[in-house]
Amino acid sequence: MTIAAAELRDRLAGLEGVGIREDGVWRMAWTEELAAAESWFREQAAAAGLRVARDPAGSLWALPGGDGPWWATGSHLDSVRAGGRFDGPLGVAAGFAVAERVPGVAVLAFADEEGARFNTPTFGSRALVGRLDVADAVARRDDDGVALGEALRDFGADPDGLADAPSWLARLRGFVELHIDQTRDLERLGAPAGAVTGLASRLRLALELRGRADHAGTTRRHERADALAAAARLMVAADELAGDDPDFLVTASRILVEPNAFTTVPAHVRLWIDARTPDPARLDAWRAALAERAAAAAVGVELAVASQSAGVAFDPAVRAALGELPELVCYAGHDAGILAERIPAGMVFVRNATGISHSPDEHVELEDAAVAASALLRALEALT
Amino acid sequence: MTIAAAELRDRLAGLEGVGIREDGVWRMAWTEELAAAESWFREQAAAAGLRVARDPAGSLWALPGGDGPWWATGSHLDSVRAGGRFDGPLGVAAGFAVAERVPGVAVLAFADEEGARFNTPTFGSRALVGRLDVADAVARRDDDGVALGEALRDFGADPDGLADAPSWLARLRGFVELHIDQTRDLERLGAPAGAVTGLASRLRLALELRGRADHAGTTRRHERADALAAAARLMVAADELAGDDPDFLVTASRILVEPNAFTTVPAHVRLWIDARTPDPARLDAWRAALAERAAAAAVGVELAVASQSAGVAFDPAVRAALGELPELVCYAGHDAGILAERIPAGMVFVRNATGISHSPDEHVELEDAAVAASALLRALEALT
Repeated sequence: MTIAAAELRDRLAGLEGVGIREDGVWRMAWTEELAAAESWFREQAAAAGLRVARDPAGSLWALPGGDGPWWATGSHLDSVRAGGRFDGPLGVAAGFAVAERVPGVAVLAFADEEGARFNTPTFGSRALVGRLDVADAVARRDDDGVALGEALRDFGADPDGLADAPSWLARLRGFVELHIDQTRDLERLGAPAGAVTGLASRLRLALELRGRADHAGTTRRHERADALAAAARLMVAADELAGDDPDFLVTASRILVEPNAFTTVPAHVRLWIDARTPDPARLDAWRAALAERAAAAAVGVELAVASQSAGVAFDPAVRAALGELPELVCYAGHDAGILAERIPAGMVFVRNATGISHSPDEHVELEDAAVAASALLRALEALT
Repeated sequence: MTIAAAELRDRLAGLEGVGIREDGVWRMAWTEELAAAESWFREQAAAAGLRVARDPAGSLWALPGGDGPWWATGSHLDSVRAGGRFDGPLGVAAGFAVAERVPGVAVLAFADEEGARFNTPTFGSRALVGRLDVADAVARRDDDGVALGEALRDFGADPDGLADAPSWLARLRGFVELHIDQTRDLERLGAPAGAVTGLASRLRLALELRGRADHAGTTRRHERADALAAAARLMVAADELAGDDPDFLVTASRILVEPNAFTTVPAHVRLWIDARTPDPARLDAWRAALAERAAAAAVGVELAVASQSAGVAFDPAVRAALGELPELVCYAGHDAGILAERIPAGMVFVRNATGISHSPDEHVELEDAAVAASALLRALEALT
């Protein structure tokens, strides 16, 4: 049994026009655009004869009859700001293609995998395994000042029930996720699909720099406390401290400056830096070195860990069930990586010729996706 | 005849509560807050027996009887984002104190001196001397996408009449502006007030960096086009290229990043850098060196001159009329500097103990301001 590219194309066609703007896909957590994507999920579930339930974290479950526990597949429907068409939805579409063919398989769409709105990546899966700091999460605010708890409530979910999410984990025997490769690793291997052996270590730092607003044209250099000048030096240091290691990825990805005016010395900067490497010890050493630079900066700097993960190895039985696919390590965070701490889990990747994702230029060939979906199908046949 | 601190305090009291937020004064050009400040201007004019007219650029003129031409004083009422209480209004308040005592003196409040909303500093005075690129200016948009021309129209002014502004210049014999010192220069000299001999050379660069959005966790370093990483290096270079000269002021003051997301390599950066020095040749050399660095950056960089001024020397007769005040060079741009290209002009500064301006912490002692206002009064008595 295999799954054809045309079937995946037909399934994904239902998401065209949903949250797609000129600069990419906008389907952030608990927005109108996400609600429209969830309507597509419900249609797919109904066509596959599955009933839909929402867990206390807001994730959608398309469930077979009976009480479970079930093997599950799927991914997420939310996107980053101005993202691509495949990161998330491809795994959900492939999941429905598998669930129509293998009895007893559930399809999941995890809530807020990207964390783009509240800086809460893998929200739904962390809630499910009981690793979410609920009080911290519901109080986080988006750029418009809306708290995550309010956003959940406005979306029809119940933030007070969040602490109950882990009670749903017992419904799962295991989870296998199909996702686009977000590197050129499979392209280099010349393979349409690959089996992921585990996730690299990850760290997201939040820096806050407090200088002083002064007139940019008149305040002498030695009298200034310029938060952006200090931030620029820390961004350069963060990059240089990673050395020449091509597998050590450091990105100053987001910055907010106040007052951000033409003629005022920047008073206040918030800066987020993302770092990933297969080796957790290197990550620790890098953080310590950057903290030293921050302590020596010309303005006061607070350096906090916004999120981190020590990395994870996927389940050998899932790996074996995926058959003769080439192997790779993954640098991104995924719901399957969160679940792997508690239940058998694994991932299959689809080749991405450019490696580009989180961008409107993100692209996969659906012929490659069909190879990966067929491997997913065989794996879930073997596992169930 | 002198002007007392208490009078200046009483006049400025009418601006308390006008556009003042927790983080400072917000009276940007052609906003409701500016309109409220203009009501105060009309009250001051009425009390001084002056009639108010608006010129085609939106500047307010409080005029004596007759047809002129007149000597004028004044400053501006608009502020930067989150600015201070004295930058601008102090000169207008002192102007009314002078005009009440010296017959035939006009008081001006120039439109959009700060240029904080549309990046159009000294808008009103440039329009008046015919040095404003009208087509460019009216098309500029603020952060909400509102064009300057629309903002003018919504404010009750006529953008189509802008080209007519220079016809108003003939009404002026000369202009003397009182302003707070935006350095600690007068504090160092131990003087409550000073006479400005001229303005330093200034340059505002607008840089646009075009990289590519990629997943921050998975795209290998050599595969990236990270616009923010390149911008950080250019900010550091801009500072370092100024060398150790304490009088060469370089500020990366404003930055806009897209998509500015936690897990995406920054694709697009707009960055503004402000540079000032008494020596125009040094400014040119600095710009050329920075342009070389920009050309060698890891992403495409466009470097444009957003505004520039070669500096200006003030009128010797105005300087002489200001009497025995210590002298200083000014690093900020001012409407008096623009007018000096066409008519006799000068400035008197008020001591600023901290040098802080463009900030809610901006402060002057009104006793010092009274010394400066009294010098302004004597100067206009001598000149008229």
